[in-house]
Amino acid sequence: MSFTLPGQLADTPEEECAVFGVFAPGQDVARITGFGLQALQHRGQESAGIAVGDGASMVEAKDLGLVTQVFDEAKLAALEGFVAVGHCRYSTSGAAASWEAAQPHISAIDNVLVALAHNGTLVNTEALRAQLDAEGVVLRAGTDSEVAAKAIGHITQDTHHLRQGIRWLMEHMEGAYAMVLASPDALYAFRDPNGIRPLCIGGLPGGGWVVSSETCGLDIVGATYLRDVEPGEIVRFNRDGLTAEQGVPAARRASCIFEYVYFARPDSVLDGQSVYQARRAMGRILAREAPARADLVLGVPDSGVPAALGFAEASGIPFTDGIVKNRYVGRTFIQPTQEMRQMGIRLKLNPLPSVIGGKRLVVIDDSIVRGNTSRQLVAMLREAGAAEVHLRIVSPEVLWPCFYGIDTDTRDQLIAANMTLPQMNEWIGSDSLAFISLEGLRASLPDVCHPGFCEACFTGDYVVPVPLP
Amino acid sequence: MSFTLPGQLADTPEEECAVFGVFAPGQDVARITGFGLQALQHRGQESAGIAVGDGASMVEAKDLGLVTQVFDEAKLAALEGFVAVGHCRYSTSGAAASWEAAQPHISAIDNVLVALAHNGTLVNTEALRAQLDAEGVVLRAGTDSEVAAKAIGHITQDTHHLRQGIRWLMEHMEGAYAMVLASPDALYAFRDPNGIRPLCIGGLPGGGWVVSSETCGLDIVGATYLRDVEPGEIVRFNRDGLTAEQGVPAARRASCIFEYVYFARPDSVLDGQSVYQARRAMGRILAREAPARADLVLGVPDSGVPAALGFAEASGIPFTDGIVKNRYVGRTFIQPTQEMRQMGIRLKLNPLPSVIGGKRLVVIDDSIVRGNTSRQLVAMLREAGAAEVHLRIVSPEVLWPCFYGIDTDTRDQLIAANMTLPQMNEWIGSDSLAFISLEGLRASLPDVCHPGFCEACFTGDYVVPVPLP
Amino acid sequence: MSFTLPGQLADTPEEECAVFGVFAPGQDVARITGFGLQALQHRGQESAGIAVGDGASMVEAKDLGLVTQVFDEAKLAALEGFVAVGHCRYSTSGAAASWEAAQPHISAIDNVLVALAHNGTLVNTEALRAQLDAEGVVLRAGTDSEVAAKAIGHITQDTHHLRQGIRWLMEHMEGAYAMVLASPDALYAFRDPNGIRPLCIGGLPGGGWVVSSETCGLDIVGATYLRDVEPGEIVRFNRDGLTAEQGVPAARRASCIFEYVYFARPDSVLDGQSVYQARRAMGRILAREAPARADLVLGVPDSGVPAALGFAEASGIPFTDGIVKNRYVGRTFIQPTQEMRQMGIRLKLNPLPSVIGGKRLVVIDDSIVRGNTSRQLVAMLREAGAAEVHLRIVSPEVLWPCFYGIDTDTRDQLIAANMTLPQMNEWIGSDSLAFISLEGLRASLPDVCHPGFCEACFTGDYVVPVPLP
Amino acid sequence: MSFTLPGQLADTPEEECAVFGVFAPGQDVARITGFGLQALQHRGQESAGIAVGDGASMVEAKDLGLVTQVFDEAKLAALEGFVAVGHCRYSTSGAAASWEAAQPHISAIDNVLVALAHNGTLVNTEALRAQLDAEGVVLRAGTDSEVAAKAIGHITQDTHHLRQGIRWLMEHMEGAYAMVLASPDALYAFRDPNGIRPLCIGGLPGGGWVVSSETCGLDIVGATYLRDVEPGEIVRFNRDGLTAEQGVPAARRASCIFEYVYFARPDSVLDGQSVYQARRAMGRILAREAPARADLVLGVPDSGVPAALGFAEASGIPFTDGIVKNRYVGRTFIQPTQEMRQMGIRLKLNPLPSVIGGKRLVVIDDSIVRGNTSRQLVAMLREAGAAEVHLRIVSPEVLWPCFYGIDTDTRDQLIAANMTLPQMNEWIGSDSLAFISLEGLRASLPDVCHPGFCEACFTGDYVVPVPLP
Repeated sequence: MSFTLPGQLADTPEEECAVFGVFAPGQDVARITGFGLQALQHRGQESAGIAVGDGASMVEAKDLGLVTQVFDEAKLAALEGFVAVGHCRYSTSGAAASWEAAQPHISAIDNVLVALAHNGTLVNTEALRAQLDAEGVVLRAGTDSEVAAKAIGHITQDTHHLRQGIRWLMEHMEGAYAMVLASPDALYAFRDPNGIRPLCIGGLPGGGWVVSSETCGLDIVGATYLRDVEPGEIVRFNRDGLTAEQGVPAARRASCIFEYVYFARPDSVLDGQSVYQARRAMGRILAREAPARADLVLGVPDSGVPAALGFAEASGIPFTDGIVKNRYVGRTFIQPTQEMRQMGIRLKLNPLPSVIGGKRLVVIDDSIVRGNTSRQLVAMLREAGAAEVHLRIVSPEVLWPCFYGIDTDTRDQLIAANMTLPQMNEWIGSDSLAFISLEGLRASLPDVCHPGFCEACFTGDYVVPVPLP
Repeated sequence: MSFTLPGQLADTPEEECAVFGVFAPGQDVARITGFGLQALQHRGQESAGIAVGDGASMVEAKDLGLVTQVFDEAKLAALEGFVAVGHCRYSTSGAAASWEAAQPHISAIDNVLVALAHNGTLVNTEALRAQLDAEGVVLRAGTDSEVAAKAIGHITQDTHHLRQGIRWLMEHMEGAYAMVLASPDALYAFRDPNGIRPLCIGGLPGGGWVVSSETCGLDIVGATYLRDVEPGEIVRFNRDGLTAEQGVPAARRASCIFEYVYFARPDSVLDGQSVYQARRAMGRILAREAPARADLVLGVPDSGVPAALGFAEASGIPFTDGIVKNRYVGRTFIQPTQEMRQMGIRLKLNPLPSVIGGKRLVVIDDSIVRGNTSRQLVAMLREAGAAEVHLRIVSPEVLWPCFYGIDTDTRDQLIAANMTLPQMNEWIGSDSLAFISLEGLRASLPDVCHPGFCEACFTGDYVVPVPLP
Repeated sequence: MSFTLPGQLADTPEEECAVFGVFAPGQDVARITGFGLQALQHRGQESAGIAVGDGASMVEAKDLGLVTQVFDEAKLAALEGFVAVGHCRYSTSGAAASWEAAQPHISAIDNVLVALAHNGTLVNTEALRAQLDAEGVVLRAGTDSEVAAKAIGHITQDTHHLRQGIRWLMEHMEGAYAMVLASPDALYAFRDPNGIRPLCIGGLPGGGWVVSSETCGLDIVGATYLRDVEPGEIVRFNRDGLTAEQGVPAARRASCIFEYVYFARPDSVLDGQSVYQARRAMGRILAREAPARADLVLGVPDSGVPAALGFAEASGIPFTDGIVKNRYVGRTFIQPTQEMRQMGIRLKLNPLPSVIGGKRLVVIDDSIVRGNTSRQLVAMLREAGAAEVHLRIVSPEVLWPCFYGIDTDTRDQLIAANMTLPQMNEWIGSDSLAFISLEGLRASLPDVCHPGFCEACFTGDYVVPVPLP
Repeated sequence: MSFTLPGQLADTPEEECAVFGVFAPGQDVARITGFGLQALQHRGQESAGIAVGDGASMVEAKDLGLVTQVFDEAKLAALEGFVAVGHCRYSTSGAAASWEAAQPHISAIDNVLVALAHNGTLVNTEALRAQLDAEGVVLRAGTDSEVAAKAIGHITQDTHHLRQGIRWLMEHMEGAYAMVLASPDALYAFRDPNGIRPLCIGGLPGGGWVVSSETCGLDIVGATYLRDVEPGEIVRFNRDGLTAEQGVPAARRASCIFEYVYFARPDSVLDGQSVYQARRAMGRILAREAPARADLVLGVPDSGVPAALGFAEASGIPFTDGIVKNRYVGRTFIQPTQEMRQMGIRLKLNPLPSVIGGKRLVVIDDSIVRGNTSRQLVAMLREAGAAEVHLRIVSPEVLWPCFYGIDTDTRDQLIAANMTLPQMNEWIGSDSLAFISLEGLRASLPDVCHPGFCEACFTGDYVVPVPLP
């Protein structure tokens, strides 16, 4: 079998960002944004930034690092104003952290500074760039956020109407995006017509609004969930209140289904669907689709645990926690010695032999991308005494790369695109291996009041056409 | 009711340290210690230090911060040798981090540098100090670790026999201690005669030994658990192998029972008892001692979860996870605005309304010290829709301060020492409140092959006499 | 005598900034700016910033610290483009360093980002602000640089002609200013109509231009001095070359005479006048105006040394260096013990007893502001054995505060505004004290091809009307 | 001509260290040491360290960086005691800064911690090491300071008399050394029998003593110079006062003559000789030995300036300052672009064309090692308009490497060892080139009350036999 995999690479789909915004005159919007970003830190740990407007202009601070490393009291105090946007960016594994990619992106639109924060990926950046170029708009790095800001500005400079600029952008850009934009006196939030990336609105107890990638960002600042930003919608918050309009017609609904599987925090509610309840339902459904004769059900922490509870519930096999996660694994010295290299996954996870010894286990994980982590996990569980390891995955086989904001590599790195199920089972070393069906996954999301998800990573059916190589 | 409590103070007993040691010629002992300390980081986050010996002398690096903040590749590479000790120190809430209190403590004994790392607290430091003083030994800060090192050195300078010095120390010092000491060519580990603080020994796959506060420190470096250091025992590791002797006769066995309740990582095995299994048993026993009529059982993460599983198991009430812990709460800007101050606990914990809404809950927590966190938790659960909150605590009422290495304040700050159970239930706001009985807690630790624990915080029966005010 | 002075305060007039700009396609403009700012670091050590444009947009990095502390290779590499402006800001003694005051100031003008760096102080900021306010332009902090940028933008948004905006600003703002402004594709430099603050232009050997507060900024990057920016002139550098126009008519010429006395580096040439030659001439003239019977002439390093050479030249009294400056006095721990406090000035300066012992000294210093440094200096020289100390100052008595970019306190802190010459001589402890006459100072600047200087600090004749309290 | 030289390497002899010590009960010895090290910072900028004893033990803090970067108020405050030693280490150009080489070196001697700080280089480290090895003393890194400390300890452990240990060490080690050693209750200072490296003693105004590599370290803390530590002498400072004894008989006196030429600060007095006066005399003597027909005399700052004053004095040619030194050249981004690389020396030095234009110059520099800096300097002076450049060097030709603490490379890198004087003059590009004679250099040091210097770098006559390759 010629399928070789590098030993130490990340084996989890990785997303790019969190966005957060506040409009709240009289309140400490920089601090509110700082707390909001802390709650969203799981969506990106490479860089953090906050830009604040005070009616006249905007001031920004951003740098590489966690929210609490980038911001201290002095910087927060300097960020005075009543409208703010914030951003956390994902740290691409291996690549050097990129100082210039930190957001929010500051640009000039209709003679004021605006700050744009973006979660997602555009698929027609090049075309949009060419179009702007043809109209005489020059671009710097050509990042998604720069292209978006330039496009907004290009229209706005003539119309002096920022939402017209945003509308033009939404009419011309394609892909997945959840964007928040602050001008010196207003906050804007808008979302792609398919609603691929999440974005929700909350009301602060003292008045004013917050916008957040996930509802856990509302909870931490005491905001009440009001509603999600609708697909294709533009919502503006200013001293006149909240004004919503349809930037582009909503298209086929296609919320990223992976948010429910892995990315989002379990205490978040995305488009009306509790992430926690979804994960639990995935487990229940998978238990019916792919039962296993076993003594215990375990979840791989953190995201696999609610699904394991669901699997246990439906199968009658007792749930247990049996894999401990090390909360303090850091980045500074990460090259173990040769002796220690083989441990791999053990730096992060440690199984409990007293729990799993001699037991037949059902182990629930969220997904399999390259397969090497699963392989190490199974080996570690066997070493800890597991009699059998039945691996159950609450997402279908990942067969296609994502082009909408998630880093899932190319097809030749996706194990499921290169092996049959029996081959995978053998390579990973599990006693049995099963993935939830796509129908099953859909069924686990009953509260979403719309029919559709983006399932391209499972089906190759890209809701927004992409430039496949 | 005049019992007032500060609003923002920590409400969990807090321990002081982790110790780790390696003797492994030919291996990167500094790096092994670095990984070991990472696994033990939950026992202390204020400072980290590693001292390494190479047969001739010792080199040390230590500073304030997490292990991964204090050490980088350059420093690890500079710490060459074959024997090492490491230490993580607890960050006392509120007090300024103390640079000079970082360990290991370097001293001179019999003409060589030695490095001592200590977990625990001595109760006769003053007496020991006076005795040394009477014999002409002068002391600097008079910290436990300095007094201990000076005492060892005082004897050893005459006998040229380090273990004689350690023995003399053990014969004269009283309290709780788990100490590791490295001379340039040997590692020593010794433990108080009551075995209050934990300390275990592991064998490295490539040869050599490690000593660790908990077994999770063995697991991360691939070491095999061999045994615990016995109460009163001195174990030496050098090129001649492992040599054990009884430093002082073992006394009444008194392992800190709180290690099982709260401090230790669940994947650790202390004195033969799996922490995880103990916590699970606590839940089972508590379910029988203090049943509740409820729909769901939840644990307060992280330590309450295994007990909640046990409670569910014994009571038949379904277990669920329903409180999400924010993994990224940092230290840099911690003063929320007035609006946000009332959230308090929400910065760390967030309940899942979709899980607990309308439900009667049994909530399992490890302990109640001051009570204010419990009060906030109950309020937050009710706000999230809980119909009833039955609080079940897997430790008895904490009535007495600890003098053996844990920071549990004075009696007037301990809620259980100042209120009756009904008063506490009312003040905290729970529908019912129950603590496990001491007998029940003991029964949850069946694998400990000895009869005794230190239970002074519950009983006031201090195994080692203490200077009560 | 009731004139009391604080013991440890700075006793030198302090200026606010350095500005630097580059337009050089194909060259590493961020690095060139970094080196330029290093040469200008003496003008400000609090913060450093660089903004770079690449035709499309601008990127900026700035923070508190020296140039070499704020910028590393990674940040310089991220600042790609062909036009740049940079800034160093002065650290106000005592006041907390201000993160938000760091420049360049980024703003939005006619739909692009522009970066403005400013050296000087406006005197009608409030009026300008009110005027902008009346026209509906809202301002944030209201700093000089923000007001200036907003004013430029206000006009430019209608005319789409940036230089029209700059012209409007120059027509309406009053005070001292040397400004550089970068748009994404052009560099602008402009200077107040009196030419109070210096600003010069250089040509790079590989093509392109640099603009610098002083010519030493040209030298370090190998640029050839072309000419100064003329009072009231706007110079634009873009792909079409250098274009100059008169923004406002030049007014009464009033170069800050203190630049020659103290601020500028001696290797700089300001408005055609070598700073070094000026200082030397000051010494010669002072020797004739206020001769002294002495054995040796010394200068207080660094700025007093060339003047001392001139004094020696004209008086025939031999020059010597006899006061050594400690180059490494830092900021971290600056509170000496009581014993050490009395040393004061000795932390920076150390006299040579072997040189001055038993000698009658003429000591040349640039200026006396509060007088306390002079007092300590004289005491220290006497302690080192000086037989007589004749203090000669190459600027006239500082009687009035500066409002054009220099921090010289209020009148009640200026010793010369509160004492007669004999009183000063007595308080300072010198054997004789003399200041150069204003005519003498003027005569030391023969190469300036214009008649006038700003001499307000000596005369109270403010070239631009100021709001005196 | 085949003699090629790398373009960017340092071209100045480089020394290794500064040492400082204090014994002063009741005073803040850590702070005093911090100030002392600041005054000595010119002797080493790579690392800084302070160790403090309080009678009982020692505490140390050290790290890479300048004194003011390594120490802040918190660290100084933690270093409580009444005896201290400090050290600054030189940063070897090019080599990575070495964390583990930072001093003071802590070791264990006779059951206490002692801290040793060392300036100099031993030539028989290997032999000493072998001898210790034969006697069963094992060594770690084998650095000079470790070997020295181990040797002291080896004897002291039997005799319990630290000075006996120091004596044994002095009897057996060969080379150049000025060492300070702190035990918890005493300070020791000792110096090689030839007195190669300087070391002096001062009395503090509040009582107690300081020891310093140079007298400028006394001045900054207000200490009065008492005397130098004599060659071969051991001086102990403790509560009984100052006790001196001869550790080894003084040998042929051989003070490093290069201290006077280049290393020491001009305000220091070494072995009774004012460095400043020596440099000035060098210039006078060189003027007589190698006169030049010129208009002006300049010194290359900082060390060449006093010699230039002397040359001017003796020759009647006017002295001027004409080369400005940039005080802020840092280390962070040091790779200039290709365009800028050719500037080389200009990043540090900038000549004044208005001073030197059209003039015939005598330029005084301290020494020529590789010659490339001189070559760049001459080219830069010509470019600035110098009509003629007559280079005069106040040290003889450097023909031999130093083995006593200075980094002067190997013979094949020393230009004077590879070229005749006319060849050097041609290669460097000067109009004439002359070095002071050795007799002349000696004559410039009249105040040294002893006959001898170490002049090995000029003569190859190594006062202590060295292992020449």
